Amino acid sequence: MKSFVLQYQRYKKIVDQRLRQCVAKDEPRTLYEPVNYVLSGGGKRIRPLLVILSCEAVGGTMKQAVNAAVAIEILHNFTLVHDDIMDNANSRRGRATVHKKWDTNIAILVGDELVALAYRELLKTQSSHIARVADIFTEGVVEVCEGQMYDKDFETRSRVSLKDYMLMIGKKTGKMVSVASEMGAVIGGATASEARALKHYGTHVGRAFQIQDDLLDVVADEKEFGKTIGGDIVEGKKTFLLIEANARTRGSDKKFLRGIIDRKGATAGQIAAVREIYERYGVMDLAKQTIAKNITLANSQLSRLRKSPSRDMLFWFSHMLLNRNS
Amino acid sequence: MKSFVLQYQRYKKIVDQRLRQCVAKDEPRTLYEPVNYVLSGGGKRIRPLLVILSCEAVGGTMKQAVNAAVAIEILHNFTLVHDDIMDNANSRRGRATVHKKWDTNIAILVGDELVALAYRELLKTQSSHIARVADIFTEGVVEVCEGQMYDKDFETRSRVSLKDYMLMIGKKTGKMVSVASEMGAVIGGATASEARALKHYGTHVGRAFQIQDDLLDVVADEKEFGKTIGGDIVEGKKTFLLIEANARTRGSDKKFLRGIIDRKGATAGQIAAVREIYERYGVMDLAKQTIAKNITLANSQLSRLRKSPSRDMLFWFSHMLLNRNS
Repeated sequence: MKSFVLQYQRYKKIVDQRLRQCVAKDEPRTLYEPVNYVLSGGGKRIRPLLVILSCEAVGGTMKQAVNAAVAIEILHNFTLVHDDIMDNANSRRGRATVHKKWDTNIAILVGDELVALAYRELLKTQSSHIARVADIFTEGVVEVCEGQMYDKDFETRSRVSLKDYMLMIGKKTGKMVSVASEMGAVIGGATASEARALKHYGTHVGRAFQIQDDLLDVVADEKEFGKTIGGDIVEGKKTFLLIEANARTRGSDKKFLRGIIDRKGATAGQIAAVREIYERYGVMDLAKQTIAKNITLANSQLSRLRKSPSRDMLFWFSHMLLNRNS
Repeated sequence: MKSFVLQYQRYKKIVDQRLRQCVAKDEPRTLYEPVNYVLSGGGKRIRPLLVILSCEAVGGTMKQAVNAAVAIEILHNFTLVHDDIMDNANSRRGRATVHKKWDTNIAILVGDELVALAYRELLKTQSSHIARVADIFTEGVVEVCEGQMYDKDFETRSRVSLKDYMLMIGKKTGKMVSVASEMGAVIGGATASEARALKHYGTHVGRAFQIQDDLLDVVADEKEFGKTIGGDIVEGKKTFLLIEANARTRGSDKKFLRGIIDRKGATAGQIAAVREIYERYGVMDLAKQTIAKNITLANSQLSRLRKSPSRDMLFWFSHMLLNRNS
């Protein structure tokens, strides 16, 4: 267990270093300073870790996977920079967002450049399967954009079903997690069934991860989480919790939640009341169960792979996500 | 000559059709309606034409090159959508820009999606050189972003030399033209020297094209050009003409131009006076000479290729650019 944590930190350090170095001295500085600001901003680096572990789990090496690992993290940062513009977010990981620290035009361009840099890194991958790897990656980029559009659409739509929500997060968040594990597998020379198993592992992990994110909005430690607790409630964001609560409540509770949905948000003073409804209707438990179910499904996919330390670490990884508090 | 025009129209039609069809029915409609709006908006399709002709000129076929041709046009449209946000432009090719017809968030996302779709198309290319093709394409995307950043930087900088300007347009506009011809060559199975010749052909054509664009701003037919004449002058844009005129003028003429540069623009009533200065100091002639010189350099690269109808059409193509009025 402890060795997995150390291994994670080791890989994270390698990825962080690559991210810091990739365009450290490039010109024009007006573009690359904010790019470097983003790439040195930290993060859990879970997508890169998945690329590397999936590659190793099918017999490949960290070295083979590291460019794709860095690429997917750069791409993830692109989505954050552009999403932050669209959400008009002020801070990210405890620092000012790019469009606040610089301006919107620069943030647009920084995001665009990050996409290009992601492909540049990806294409450094030495693999006879590079075309397929690039295909998998590209379908991820397509779906991330589709997912973000659904997310923006849902903000102004008063009815969003759990099915709609699952489609949206599957594209916006889940897809890139399954892209990570599938790409890693393909780079590592996986058989078709190994690649499929690792792809599905990523799908379930991604789903669990996002529902966990929704849950952490109401239960996390504010300092560790790096976001304001109840932020989703204040925004009236149609999360797993709000959608499920809205479907289960009756009478005055329902009226209260519909008010938040229809007026597109709540006051900070209403957060506690919403949380109380979530608890009373068992919505928080349901979220926990759904996360646990997806982790179980993810792990059942791992059982299709031969035993290896990296496979063990993938088991550890999904459990770590389940128990994270930030 | 007439047959080249017909051939151009034939290729243009194929590219237009592919662009219209590529995501015609995809979901969510809120994303793909504006994407299709952009992709069906017309344009000269000169980058796709260059991809196809360069491929043919080294012995390849139109069919081999068509995906890359479509890809580069999609990518070009991405740059237009995001540039229009940054420039706060109201119209493009006689229609409302995406961020005006929809909104800025949608325009950001439409641009992002176009990058993903460009790669999706590119990766359909059936070629043993696909990794190299993707590399060339990606370096183009990187430089387009760098060029756009320089362009934005120059808006607020009072001193911009011709060297700065050439670096900027080389990245913002020229690079993708040389990417087009180099990619086409590689897909067509070019030798190293053929690929190099076609790449350099593109570099010179791209340079000529942009200076021609600057020139057309003051001499074009407004209806054919699709933009307001003198628009660059009103914006105080540091074009080839303004930079060269500023370097050559003295006394009251210089003071007048510096006023436009420092106050970052001119009134519509001042357009005629600026044009008159351009003429008097021979700046328009200089632009024409520079364009002609670059076309000559482009054509000298073509002489390194074996004779073929496609090579002839590339000669025709650069002369057509020289004589275009829109």
